[in-house]
Amino acid sequence: MLRSLIQKSPSSIFHLNFNLRSLRSRVMNTQSFSSTVSPPSKAIVYETHGQPDAVTKLVHIPGTEVKENDVCVKMLAAPINPSDVNRIQGIYPVRPEPPAVGGYEGVGEVYSVGSAVTSFSPGDWVIPSPPSFGTWQTYIVKNQNVWHKVNKGVPMEYAATITVNPLTALLMLEDCVTLNSGDAIVQNGATSMVGQCVIQLAKSRGIHNINIIRDRPGVNEVKERLKDLGADEVFTENELEVKNVKSLLGGIPEPALGFNCVGGNSASLVLKFLRHGGTMVTYGGMSKKPVTVSTSSFIFKDISLRGFWLQKWLGTDKAEESRRMIDRLLGLVQDGKLKYKMELTPFHDFNTALDKSLGKLGSQPKQVIKF
Amino acid sequence: MLRSLIQKSPSSIFHLNFNLRSLRSRVMNTQSFSSTVSPPSKAIVYETHGQPDAVTKLVHIPGTEVKENDVCVKMLAAPINPSDVNRIQGIYPVRPEPPAVGGYEGVGEVYSVGSAVTSFSPGDWVIPSPPSFGTWQTYIVKNQNVWHKVNKGVPMEYAATITVNPLTALLMLEDCVTLNSGDAIVQNGATSMVGQCVIQLAKSRGIHNINIIRDRPGVNEVKERLKDLGADEVFTENELEVKNVKSLLGGIPEPALGFNCVGGNSASLVLKFLRHGGTMVTYGGMSKKPVTVSTSSFIFKDISLRGFWLQKWLGTDKAEESRRMIDRLLGLVQDGKLKYKMELTPFHDFNTALDKSLGKLGSQPKQVIKF
Repeated sequence: MLRSLIQKSPSSIFHLNFNLRSLRSRVMNTQSFSSTVSPPSKAIVYETHGQPDAVTKLVHIPGTEVKENDVCVKMLAAPINPSDVNRIQGIYPVRPEPPAVGGYEGVGEVYSVGSAVTSFSPGDWVIPSPPSFGTWQTYIVKNQNVWHKVNKGVPMEYAATITVNPLTALLMLEDCVTLNSGDAIVQNGATSMVGQCVIQLAKSRGIHNINIIRDRPGVNEVKERLKDLGADEVFTENELEVKNVKSLLGGIPEPALGFNCVGGNSASLVLKFLRHGGTMVTYGGMSKKPVTVSTSSFIFKDISLRGFWLQKWLGTDKAEESRRMIDRLLGLVQDGKLKYKMELTPFHDFNTALDKSLGKLGSQPKQVIKF
Repeated sequence: MLRSLIQKSPSSIFHLNFNLRSLRSRVMNTQSFSSTVSPPSKAIVYETHGQPDAVTKLVHIPGTEVKENDVCVKMLAAPINPSDVNRIQGIYPVRPEPPAVGGYEGVGEVYSVGSAVTSFSPGDWVIPSPPSFGTWQTYIVKNQNVWHKVNKGVPMEYAATITVNPLTALLMLEDCVTLNSGDAIVQNGATSMVGQCVIQLAKSRGIHNINIIRDRPGVNEVKERLKDLGADEVFTENELEVKNVKSLLGGIPEPALGFNCVGGNSASLVLKFLRHGGTMVTYGGMSKKPVTVSTSSFIFKDISLRGFWLQKWLGTDKAEESRRMIDRLLGLVQDGKLKYKMELTPFHDFNTALDKSLGKLGSQPKQVIKF
């Protein structure tokens, strides 16, 4: 368990029963022909799938060769996303085989570059784009193609988190249904990071947005915060236990598009708001309950349902397009038009960040590890 | 109740408390300027919405004017479809206001034509196309635009039923997903009229079809009958209570398209068969249970769900296209490539046909009234 290991000396941690053979052999092989080796790295590793607080360990990894097309990056920050947790649990469809380093996105500073690398210089900020496995470590060496240089004018926690959630929000708003200024969308899970981004990105395009949140303590404060971001309407699920939810819309048109990251009753509420011919896109299932739809919604209301998965979209030869979109998103961050709640937690407090991400300490902002 | 009324004399039926004012005034107005009046008609009428066996009545309607562009049709046959029942119950979204004559499709023989009509002659077989309300009567007078002349080389019960169910099957196979020979589809409710048509239309295009039916007495006989029509595989719901339904597919590829007219567990079985990226089209809900879908089906399996409603499709300026498709379907009937189970019941036994359609007498073939 990380909790106890972290107390131990680096040398004892290094000799843990963790399969580092491949990493070690890499370093040994390189000594004959490489001039550059990365600094040793500290990494959050899991040897087997299981509950993240049971199977993750802090491990010291020796330096690795920086080949001619490689870039060695000193990581600055990386988030703990729900999909990271699911990869460790072994329930995410695309995942590395353990032993593996946790994490999928993040930002770092170029530490050194291979002899053939001309596009990056030490000090540049870079993100893996498309994201790739193993961002929860202090140094990463990967081919230059993996890295995308980003604007240093944004806080590191935004550069670290710009892909998985904000890009999902942007793509769902742009790729699923053609929306024009004056149209409306509806979403549940509106306080999630994607939810917060959807509100701001919709507002920037003049698209009305209707938001559904869980009933919770301090709900008025949450509503105010979302309205400050640009939410037109925010309803709790209980407030929508009315005969005709559309009577609550006032002057907002019936939404053509809905986003669901909750499932169960909350998804049904999204469907209730949709206009004839509307589409609901499911990108998460926080309640762990399925989506239930009446026959008449399909036949007489002509509702369509589909899903969105960033990893699939990124897998379809969209590397260049996604980098342009990320630059756009970071531009919005720099202009103060895109913000979301996060908490930077130092790497040595990884356990706390993980506990918060696992919901053990109640509702918490997105945890971002600062290396 | 029709049951008792049918015993009464025509004159007493004519004086029922049924709002015939508009029909009467039509006839009275015409007497001053019309030379042609249709024969009086016997019709199945409902004054209010309610259970069809409680609210329908046999009514005698006096002759009506045949104007210059009208065609007077002596009806030959008309089916009792579930949507006819739902219209009478008042639960179908598009329905005539009562008092109204029941029925929506059917075939008749031209009895007389208005002075400006040149495309139809007495003796022609015609169907209302797109279908229109009020086919459960012996004589109908409507503008020539309503009628579509059909091939007399098919049995009348096929001409009477070719639109609502076979056209739905054809459109769902052609409009939802691009299918090629060698692809596969899966459907539940395979013994329904649409289901029987789907099997034969898929087979004629070299598309494999996997069929799900209810567990019922005589299931082997039903399976044989569907296989005779061209079914590749027929499973009962119980037979699909296995871990991996796809292991039952043998050499058939995973289906790209599924049709659901049942809902509940039966719809979930259709979803289980679908391939990654597949689409399920819902066109009915016989179990009265909703469709339930897991979050991961949307996100990781990229499943899409939508509905199909013939009435909406017909409403989008597709009159000419639908007539060409109907001719194609009747051609298949004539060539022996499209058949389905029906029972012709004489008009004077309408009550029995209705009881069978309402499921009061167990599983019965589609009821078609013969006038």
